[in-house]
Amino acid sequence: MMSSITSSFRSRFVSIALTLAFSVAVTANNRNTSKPNIIIMLMDDMGWGDLGAFGNPAMETPNLDHMAAEGMIFPNFYTANPLCSPSRAALLTGRLPIRNGFYTSNAHARNAYTPQNIVEGISNTEILLPKMLHKAGYVSKIVGKWHLGHRASFLPLKHGFHEWFGSPNCHFGPFNNVDTPNIPVYDGAQMVGRYYEEFPIDRKTGESNLTQLYLQHALEFINRQAVTGSPFFLYWAPDATHTPVYASRAFLGTSQRGIYGDAVRELDQAVGALLQRLRSLGLHSNSLVFFTSDNGAALSASLKGGSNGPFLCGKETTFEGGMREPAIAWWPSHIPPGTVNHQLATVMDLFTTSLMVAGVTPPISTPLDGIDLTPALLHKGTWDRPVFYYRGNELMALRYGHYKAHLWTWTNSLQEFHKGIDFCPSQEVRGVTTHNQTDHTQDPILFHLGRDPGEKYPIRQTSKEYIQVVTDMKMFVMLHKRGLRPGQPLLNWCDDAAMNWAPAGCEKLGKCLKVPKSNLQECFWPH
Amino acid sequence: MMSSITSSFRSRFVSIALTLAFSVAVTANNRNTSKPNIIIMLMDDMGWGDLGAFGNPAMETPNLDHMAAEGMIFPNFYTANPLCSPSRAALLTGRLPIRNGFYTSNAHARNAYTPQNIVEGISNTEILLPKMLHKAGYVSKIVGKWHLGHRASFLPLKHGFHEWFGSPNCHFGPFNNVDTPNIPVYDGAQMVGRYYEEFPIDRKTGESNLTQLYLQHALEFINRQAVTGSPFFLYWAPDATHTPVYASRAFLGTSQRGIYGDAVRELDQAVGALLQRLRSLGLHSNSLVFFTSDNGAALSASLKGGSNGPFLCGKETTFEGGMREPAIAWWPSHIPPGTVNHQLATVMDLFTTSLMVAGVTPPISTPLDGIDLTPALLHKGTWDRPVFYYRGNELMALRYGHYKAHLWTWTNSLQEFHKGIDFCPSQEVRGVTTHNQTDHTQDPILFHLGRDPGEKYPIRQTSKEYIQVVTDMKMFVMLHKRGLRPGQPLLNWCDDAAMNWAPAGCEKLGKCLKVPKSNLQECFWPH
Repeated sequence: MMSSITSSFRSRFVSIALTLAFSVAVTANNRNTSKPNIIIMLMDDMGWGDLGAFGNPAMETPNLDHMAAEGMIFPNFYTANPLCSPSRAALLTGRLPIRNGFYTSNAHARNAYTPQNIVEGISNTEILLPKMLHKAGYVSKIVGKWHLGHRASFLPLKHGFHEWFGSPNCHFGPFNNVDTPNIPVYDGAQMVGRYYEEFPIDRKTGESNLTQLYLQHALEFINRQAVTGSPFFLYWAPDATHTPVYASRAFLGTSQRGIYGDAVRELDQAVGALLQRLRSLGLHSNSLVFFTSDNGAALSASLKGGSNGPFLCGKETTFEGGMREPAIAWWPSHIPPGTVNHQLATVMDLFTTSLMVAGVTPPISTPLDGIDLTPALLHKGTWDRPVFYYRGNELMALRYGHYKAHLWTWTNSLQEFHKGIDFCPSQEVRGVTTHNQTDHTQDPILFHLGRDPGEKYPIRQTSKEYIQVVTDMKMFVMLHKRGLRPGQPLLNWCDDAAMNWAPAGCEKLGKCLKVPKSNLQECFWPH
Repeated sequence: MMSSITSSFRSRFVSIALTLAFSVAVTANNRNTSKPNIIIMLMDDMGWGDLGAFGNPAMETPNLDHMAAEGMIFPNFYTANPLCSPSRAALLTGRLPIRNGFYTSNAHARNAYTPQNIVEGISNTEILLPKMLHKAGYVSKIVGKWHLGHRASFLPLKHGFHEWFGSPNCHFGPFNNVDTPNIPVYDGAQMVGRYYEEFPIDRKTGESNLTQLYLQHALEFINRQAVTGSPFFLYWAPDATHTPVYASRAFLGTSQRGIYGDAVRELDQAVGALLQRLRSLGLHSNSLVFFTSDNGAALSASLKGGSNGPFLCGKETTFEGGMREPAIAWWPSHIPPGTVNHQLATVMDLFTTSLMVAGVTPPISTPLDGIDLTPALLHKGTWDRPVFYYRGNELMALRYGHYKAHLWTWTNSLQEFHKGIDFCPSQEVRGVTTHNQTDHTQDPILFHLGRDPGEKYPIRQTSKEYIQVVTDMKMFVMLHKRGLRPGQPLLNWCDDAAMNWAPAGCEKLGKCLKVPKSNLQECFWPH
């Protein structure tokens, strides 16, 4: 078994190097279907093991399981970074955060995101998916969480989306509007209220109707597009499964799993309602729907967090629990129903794939990290390609075939761990789930994820298998680094004056707050 | 949420106490279907997380997943003991091992089984499922592993089965036939060879065609019964996923998971072939097929063992990983397709359920631990009932609703652990995965398996939830113990003279070996 894998591994090496270089030049000219609608459903902190179809013991997601039965499961689907903002930036740019700037260089290998005091956001030099799709006549809406920067120039409508209902940041709070403002909710270019004020979340009961709002805005958009007939891109990004986890009253207490499960059940039902609407409008066979999540379940949230199934650790880490995502593709009469596709795939592939199905030529001059998944979706082929696991400015690990090589290991610092922040509760793999940032670049820790999906049994460094595979892995690393021009790090600077004090539209609502004096400083990223 | 669960928990208490007492007196007189065939497919050491439909990342079990899509998944299905022989004895008697004698009293809370030097086996006072079904005209065959005792009086044909192809013990070996004989393989009442001799298993490559033999014998039996028209009971118990794990040449190297996955793939394909045969013979809507496993995956086998998904520990332990089993019921046009049923169920229920569908009145005078699952199978109702987790002579834990109370915790002794035998690799829940047998009977460790399927977060003993639930749990324990008359322990005595030296039929084959002098001694059970 070993020798056949490693020999095919080696023989494919040259072709991969070639296909990676040329993949973005493939055009979709020869497609003969009308432009399909594209819906990307991106969950927040939902883990690989949270759906029935992915083995959650509660098996409470009948709509998603049905979507899988009618569509295709990707069990090897990855995010680009085990934290929200970089993952979302990667999805919408088709590029690793190290390229698009959604990382920090304040410290080594730290996850960074866009908290309320972040100064910067998505760069104008990045061309986002909705802007690309617009060339092909697509109308685009984002519903839910943005998280690519909340100051005016970074908002969705400045980056190609035509419509937005949702919020620029996480729904943390309630804040006092004195040292910290509550997060605004936008409809279009203007705020329409704030979380915990016009958009209540009951921190005690977990009640909030936000998922219902996100569902209604999505349905209403689909209805309108069905009338106009122009193709649409809907980026549906509800955040109910991110702490503080919430659900509507009708769902509270309905899950076996507590409030987290209530949130999952509501999202599951919303997914069912969206697919049903596509069906009832006759759009189903002309709509590609992709369901996934931004990063692994937040195990540090213990009973309020999700499940990463049999995988190691969770959110914030580059173990499988932090990076591997539930993924279902649905496109009736195109994607064969009830299929499993083992293609290694990433959120960045959704960028390239969306362009391909829309018949848009990807930008030639911009290095993309996503590949076109349509051969996989249409069951006509798969690609051999490496997947890179980043944490901030460091390439922590890579996967090729079934092998994963850890170049660096780290969970979090002992200091943070002793505060009670545990990314791997009740799990420990000696020398692997380290509390020091440990450099293995010379002798990577190698796992075979087919035999050992839980990353428990490192392959012996003296074995023939190890030597062969690691040699190739090091070549991939070298090629990747050689071709990499890191973007300017955008997540280095924080300032209380940058918070959501007076978003556009606040005047009309009488909700403008006083902007404090600037106190620009390097953001502190503990993980 | 908590109060609603605990109040319904309390209110149902009286009715359960009543239904448990009376359940065995319910007859199946009012059934109006013809007697369905019954097939129980019992895997060996296969874990809850080994099938695609139960979230195995390899998702390599298309036939079983299809069976689930056409049938019903039971995510809360349990064995009676986390080891093979007691589990199998429980299935075939409908009774806990503590009642049917498949336990040891040599030491406290030790798993015992029927190794080759075991002296005793299943008692004549136990009435096994095939014997009961015979009253309704069923013809019964066991294909595969028996494991209820290998001396002449304990064999399947002495306990109600009409046919047998398979072996009385595990396929350990090869032995030297001097101090230990190789295990015999029987066809009917006589041996037809021995493992590693006429029935080869290549310990180096893992190659063996035994699963194919077990498949052929099952297909041939089904074919014959289709002709005679009498209802049949097929107990299909292949053992390819028990160490030493094996697969046929055609399957070797075909799985992402290594040899264990090869074995799973071969079993999956065999299940597909069996269901297909039922279909092609027109028997499908008159055949109830139930697929499950005897205990959790053997995590101590590391890469040669299976997966228990998100559950804690594995085989030998009474954590969920040791006791919860994959379970699929299939009965086209009776069982609604693609359903999930959260009924708490056990292998012992297969006894009672089989009698019910066959229209056989369960024995009134024998206390049974299994309930009739037909209301669950036909989607007409579920039962509230406790599930008991035994290890040898000790009630280690019980589950009721979503709650599980550990009365005792133990993984294995530090001495065994330091030998490298680890039932919970890379998992540790402090105070829970103990290496001392720890008595919690006064203050059980309580988990809510809905919120916390991984048994990581004990419920605080001072909480209202804990106090209410534990009070009820203690009542269940008291009632259970009050109604329990332990059987004579059958797994106490070992003797080299009891080994398979000269099984029936050995003369014809020239394979009788010399029986050594008796050296009767208490068996040693380290776990």
